[in-house]
Amino acid sequence: MKILVQKYGGTSVADLACMKQVLEKVRKSLQRADKLVVVLSARAGDTNRLLAMAGEWSPAPDKAECDALVSTGEQVAVTLFAMLLIDAGIRARSLLAHQIPIRTDDGHGNARIRKIDDEMLRSLLDAHDVLVVAGFQGCTEDLRITTLGRGGSDTSAVALAAVLGSVECEIYTDVDGVYTTDPNICSAARKLDRIAYSEMLEMASMGAKVLHIRSVEFAQKYKVPVWVRSTFTDDPGTLVTQEDSTMEALLVSGIAFDKDQARVTLHNLPDVPGIAASVFGPISEKGILVDMIVQNTSLDGHTDITFTIPRKDLNPTLELMKEVAPKIGATEVVHDLNVAKVSAIGVGMRNHSGVAARAFAALTGEGINILMISTSEIKITILIREKYVELAVRILHDTFGLDWDPMG
Amino acid sequence: MKILVQKYGGTSVADLACMKQVLEKVRKSLQRADKLVVVLSARAGDTNRLLAMAGEWSPAPDKAECDALVSTGEQVAVTLFAMLLIDAGIRARSLLAHQIPIRTDDGHGNARIRKIDDEMLRSLLDAHDVLVVAGFQGCTEDLRITTLGRGGSDTSAVALAAVLGSVECEIYTDVDGVYTTDPNICSAARKLDRIAYSEMLEMASMGAKVLHIRSVEFAQKYKVPVWVRSTFTDDPGTLVTQEDSTMEALLVSGIAFDKDQARVTLHNLPDVPGIAASVFGPISEKGILVDMIVQNTSLDGHTDITFTIPRKDLNPTLELMKEVAPKIGATEVVHDLNVAKVSAIGVGMRNHSGVAARAFAALTGEGINILMISTSEIKITILIREKYVELAVRILHDTFGLDWDPMG
Repeated sequence: MKILVQKYGGTSVADLACMKQVLEKVRKSLQRADKLVVVLSARAGDTNRLLAMAGEWSPAPDKAECDALVSTGEQVAVTLFAMLLIDAGIRARSLLAHQIPIRTDDGHGNARIRKIDDEMLRSLLDAHDVLVVAGFQGCTEDLRITTLGRGGSDTSAVALAAVLGSVECEIYTDVDGVYTTDPNICSAARKLDRIAYSEMLEMASMGAKVLHIRSVEFAQKYKVPVWVRSTFTDDPGTLVTQEDSTMEALLVSGIAFDKDQARVTLHNLPDVPGIAASVFGPISEKGILVDMIVQNTSLDGHTDITFTIPRKDLNPTLELMKEVAPKIGATEVVHDLNVAKVSAIGVGMRNHSGVAARAFAALTGEGINILMISTSEIKITILIREKYVELAVRILHDTFGLDWDPMG
Repeated sequence: MKILVQKYGGTSVADLACMKQVLEKVRKSLQRADKLVVVLSARAGDTNRLLAMAGEWSPAPDKAECDALVSTGEQVAVTLFAMLLIDAGIRARSLLAHQIPIRTDDGHGNARIRKIDDEMLRSLLDAHDVLVVAGFQGCTEDLRITTLGRGGSDTSAVALAAVLGSVECEIYTDVDGVYTTDPNICSAARKLDRIAYSEMLEMASMGAKVLHIRSVEFAQKYKVPVWVRSTFTDDPGTLVTQEDSTMEALLVSGIAFDKDQARVTLHNLPDVPGIAASVFGPISEKGILVDMIVQNTSLDGHTDITFTIPRKDLNPTLELMKEVAPKIGATEVVHDLNVAKVSAIGVGMRNHSGVAARAFAALTGEGINILMISTSEIKITILIREKYVELAVRILHDTFGLDWDPMG
């Protein structure tokens, strides 16, 4: 029995007209699969409306209650869509997370899937052609409703595909695939036919919001091939899959960027063990995500530490540093809001030296000052002044020849 | 441990300001009870909005999907209210029907409660001061969401009170109690301090929409005293309770009426066994509620059958009669939309003859023609032309001395 898992995002189910388009996609898909599991997000705007309501009711809404509130968005979407399918003569029903169940931990607002029971799903698939599953939601052991974090419906879909041994998972959204970079910034951006899980992870973590990052981790772990496609075109889209040799022929697959960055520097720290822990311990306790960290080599027993954080976390971070700095002997805390990250990503990078050097040369050749650098096996990230972001993206895109398809 | 069950209707939780008033009621109530179970309806307008959406999506929405859709209204109300309580420092959480669970049959749209598990409720009451339970909803054995019919939150509350052995159940609404009749029609209408379950049942079934009829059946069965009160005043309201001798001193406790009636007559039926079944079988199969039925005594082996139905069901009923009439030899089917019912209700009626006679005399004395009559142990119902309803209500209210309190 061929089971296909499809996920449709909020813009794809925004209103009756959109849902009718999805109905046609589903009808066609039943010609190439025996059974369909369709995962839906909340209708565009519903999640924001519900979160705004929570914000009106409470300055800091209880997270468990907030999850139970927000999850109604997906409940509305799946029940309405199931009505359409049933009226179209398709044997269908909606499913909420607790009905399956999709078990998660109790990390309300950002819960992680622990276990999906496939028994009920399989028995329901005997009696139905399409199961319409509410994405984004899960439930704890004691049946409280959780949510998986923004974009979590992607993860619901991939996890269901993994547990059902689905041959493929298709993520339908309002873009027609994964691009080498943001087409709004770089007109030479090109849609990729394939991208490796590891590359997609680096793209996703850089704020290229095509796929929820945890869905890619799931897909990689359970080797689920994931198609990213548009609901509104017939373009085959981009396949997110395991690395193969053709991918490694490419040095760089994409250029990502993130403008939501702030930089903080602590000056003149005594270079003794435990200093980094004193700085980053309190920050991580607050749940603030530190990204790049650079510590200069020690001069006369003193050093500087510079790190980047999301912009919204700057004020709480500076508050923390006000307490921490005197304790560890830092003479000054300075910060900078006008910075941004640009990254070149590619599994081919692993086998080739000189990629970083080419990137640095290209940027400095155009007069862009490099503020910080961090590299991983398949990624080079460069912190620059925010005003240079668009220029830097275009330079790197051109430098690594992303505007033409070497496989094409 | 004194557990109090309270239910607040849709107008009581319509917006943040209303919910804050309910918060104060809850805070005060915690001074006279150890624990509170607060049952909420959907915020005013939400249920209608969701039903309208279902109607936009489907001409005849799948009932199970519709229940899962509409139940989000209560889910939104309870999570928002739980947020308020938690912010006010009250140990509280929301509960959906499936989390308790409140088991019902699978009569979607009008399900009946089969069983409420009190184990989880009791253990949650150890750790919380207030449990905020979504009214109106239940779940089937296989976890599908059901709803209990319009006004079903009253039934949720009374059922919870019954299972928890709550000393009392308080229904907060936008009126301050049960009246002898509709004050909009009869200015002499008086709020009752007490009313018997059986009287309330007759009032409720006549469309006096203060309490959901099934909630009264539950209350009567499990002997739960139910207070009907206003959220917006401090009036003690009306106590719905078991009959006692003081109640029986009153001949009539209230006058109810129902304008939503249509009358259908089949003329010249052969008076043979099985005729009534041929007429009413197909009607009840369609789920149409027949109320009054009168069959004249046979003249020359032929008879007439007249019955009343809700007005909205007139067309489908006439369609059915078009098929049925020729089969059973009826010569004519006539109908009348301009009729209405007026009832006098009272447990005291049981011990006194002549109540019916006084009612008929009073109405005919004012020139009101009586079209049909039906009587039960504690109720006399009279069908009249619709234009006389207000007059008839005032006449009966006066005839039975309802404008003064014999106990007062």
